[in-house]
Amino acid sequence: MSDFRQQALDYHQYPTPGKISVELTKPANSSKDLALAYSPGVAEPVREIAEDPDNAYKYTAKGNMVAVISNGTAILGLGNLGPLASKPVMEGKALLFKRFAGLDAIDIEVTHRTTQDFINTVANIADSFGGINLEDIKAPECFEIEQALIEKCNVPIFHDDQHGTAIVTAAGMLNALEIQGKQLKNTHIVCMGAGAAAIACMELLIKCGAQREHIYMLDSKGVIHTRRDDLNEYKALFANNTDKRTLEDVIEGADLFLGVSGPDLLEPETLKLMADKPIVFACSNPDPEIKPELAKQARADVIIGTGRSDYPNQVNNVLCFPFMFRGALDVRATAITDEMKVAAVEAIRQLAKEEVPDSVLQAAGVDKLQFGPDYIIPKPIDPRLCQRVARAVAEAAVSSGAARIDLPANYMND
Amino acid sequence: MSDFRQQALDYHQYPTPGKISVELTKPANSSKDLALAYSPGVAEPVREIAEDPDNAYKYTAKGNMVAVISNGTAILGLGNLGPLASKPVMEGKALLFKRFAGLDAIDIEVTHRTTQDFINTVANIADSFGGINLEDIKAPECFEIEQALIEKCNVPIFHDDQHGTAIVTAAGMLNALEIQGKQLKNTHIVCMGAGAAAIACMELLIKCGAQREHIYMLDSKGVIHTRRDDLNEYKALFANNTDKRTLEDVIEGADLFLGVSGPDLLEPETLKLMADKPIVFACSNPDPEIKPELAKQARADVIIGTGRSDYPNQVNNVLCFPFMFRGALDVRATAITDEMKVAAVEAIRQLAKEEVPDSVLQAAGVDKLQFGPDYIIPKPIDPRLCQRVARAVAEAAVSSGAARIDLPANYMND
Repeated sequence: MSDFRQQALDYHQYPTPGKISVELTKPANSSKDLALAYSPGVAEPVREIAEDPDNAYKYTAKGNMVAVISNGTAILGLGNLGPLASKPVMEGKALLFKRFAGLDAIDIEVTHRTTQDFINTVANIADSFGGINLEDIKAPECFEIEQALIEKCNVPIFHDDQHGTAIVTAAGMLNALEIQGKQLKNTHIVCMGAGAAAIACMELLIKCGAQREHIYMLDSKGVIHTRRDDLNEYKALFANNTDKRTLEDVIEGADLFLGVSGPDLLEPETLKLMADKPIVFACSNPDPEIKPELAKQARADVIIGTGRSDYPNQVNNVLCFPFMFRGALDVRATAITDEMKVAAVEAIRQLAKEEVPDSVLQAAGVDKLQFGPDYIIPKPIDPRLCQRVARAVAEAAVSSGAARIDLPANYMND
Repeated sequence: MSDFRQQALDYHQYPTPGKISVELTKPANSSKDLALAYSPGVAEPVREIAEDPDNAYKYTAKGNMVAVISNGTAILGLGNLGPLASKPVMEGKALLFKRFAGLDAIDIEVTHRTTQDFINTVANIADSFGGINLEDIKAPECFEIEQALIEKCNVPIFHDDQHGTAIVTAAGMLNALEIQGKQLKNTHIVCMGAGAAAIACMELLIKCGAQREHIYMLDSKGVIHTRRDDLNEYKALFANNTDKRTLEDVIEGADLFLGVSGPDLLEPETLKLMADKPIVFACSNPDPEIKPELAKQARADVIIGTGRSDYPNQVNNVLCFPFMFRGALDVRATAITDEMKVAAVEAIRQLAKEEVPDSVLQAAGVDKLQFGPDYIIPKPIDPRLCQRVARAVAEAAVSSGAARIDLPANYMND
């Protein structure tokens, strides 16, 4: 057994199994404490909430509580291993929510028969929480699930594999385009992969200004085009009216490549076919579609991002999801609107352009981080992320009508 | 607004809303920590659980985690105020689980259309937890719900309003019978109330040796007898073949009265009709069926218990439920068997017969607690409860085949 493997198992097992616990935020020692916390005192907040459901935010933990929910059908890169096996990942997500945004998050793994059964289950428990983070649910079911839950629930529903990935990817890509001197609306895009993340990334780029007809998406059968009859409704939106059939066909002259597919699927020779100053996001993890050193060997003018922390420009969802929920919950948002997603993109982009504090440099183990080809998105350990992204999201929730209260006074001010 | 009412609201609101939070049990600071907690390290426990589901107890928080689940249809004495309004009570229950047994508990409030919909929802999420405490669900639906969940789930299901109440009540009653020199099998019992708690109490007394035909149960329409045609299947099990119709009819010569009905429903004159050395459990809360001082005025030889902490002999579910789950989870029980319930009754009974440590006397604010008419059950603040009850439950889980592992070495030893 490898050293890292054993360390990972030990970390999860000792001194107590798992990574999270439930703790008390109120005194619970004296008889008086218990009389306030439970019978008879607890009847008072019960009555207040029965009169006005919004009082749940005042008297219970709901407003700071996120449920991390999965059915284990698309666990990390491991596939469909079932709900229980996904539990360490979901607890890990809860750990990240707490660590980065101070949110209380609890994991719930759902066993179900049909997609509708999953939807019903989550909808029935949703009101217990301030928001719901869906995780590791396979495509195309994840699209139907998210849409149905958005319609049924009064709290924000966010499938992080789609939208967290899309937001961070878009932030990095927009900055890379700026550095390369390109305009999104004229950008020729190749998206290798047609799963949840790929589709969400492309939809968000379109909301940011990309043209759908400039996008070529590929699945395991090659280019998605209008003459294919094997496309689900989500892929079909990207069917291009083209005679091109292979990666080589569509990558010629492309400005932007997004890989959410598998290791080493982009050959250096293929990358050479791209336009001047190309941008490559090779997000297959842990092994990218092309290794950054090979990409740079093939094309010195490339900007490359990956999912890995040991290369520059790591595309990491943790730049977004904790703060997306922080901002949404702090204004009691009922949904995550497109405006909130775009606001997160802009806040992440902007932060990469600012001077980096020494503490971040130290934590990242580097001497310098300056906006440019090797620093297009902030580091996950940047403590300014919470403030910037949560504030932008909360403001967008208010301006787009998703918020049920205004921003708290001096919210996330410097 | 009364002082206590305002204190209860303030307790729930400040400094943060609610009573519980989710905290991390593992380091999450360095990049290394995060690589172990999440991607890529988390893949290792995922694979282990996919191979053997029992590894969830080894690598996740499941084995110490209880879900407190309600639909808010029978909240305390307040009735059906809906799921969200029940949230402070469920968080309060979570607080008690942590405070008394060190268990992590999270509340989930379920919105549903049909009883079957509630059952499906809970069954679908059950595997996320080590056990499920059902709470404040109205009768008779609670019986069907509990039975269905027991059949569907692999983790212990326990409706505390039924069985927690029954276990603590039975422990107190058996000790009272012993003190009064009576045998359960010959005891003439009157049960005023026919809801979840009443039925569960009587069923457990029967398991302990009471004769069903010696029990007279009353609902709002009077005595439950074989010629009534308005009984649900659960009440019907207590239909007595008798001509008696009123409380006065059935209480004559009764040894034992259990009230789970409403305030002041047992008149002192009615109590006088009971047999010598009667036992009265007046559990309506906060106002009992008869006040202890009135009961003792009417009959100096009575032993009386209530739900109140300001009288002797408080019947309080917290004597049982935290430790029932502690014992069950510590041997990874798949169910709560009758043997486990009876073991809890016996452990609680036994503890009341032991010398009480000074620390408990101090906390209870009394000079002396000695087994007798005014001390038939332990005080909730008795720290020996966890050890005694959890150990008895765990042992019974093993001996009755509900446990999936043996008792940990030196489990809950002195």
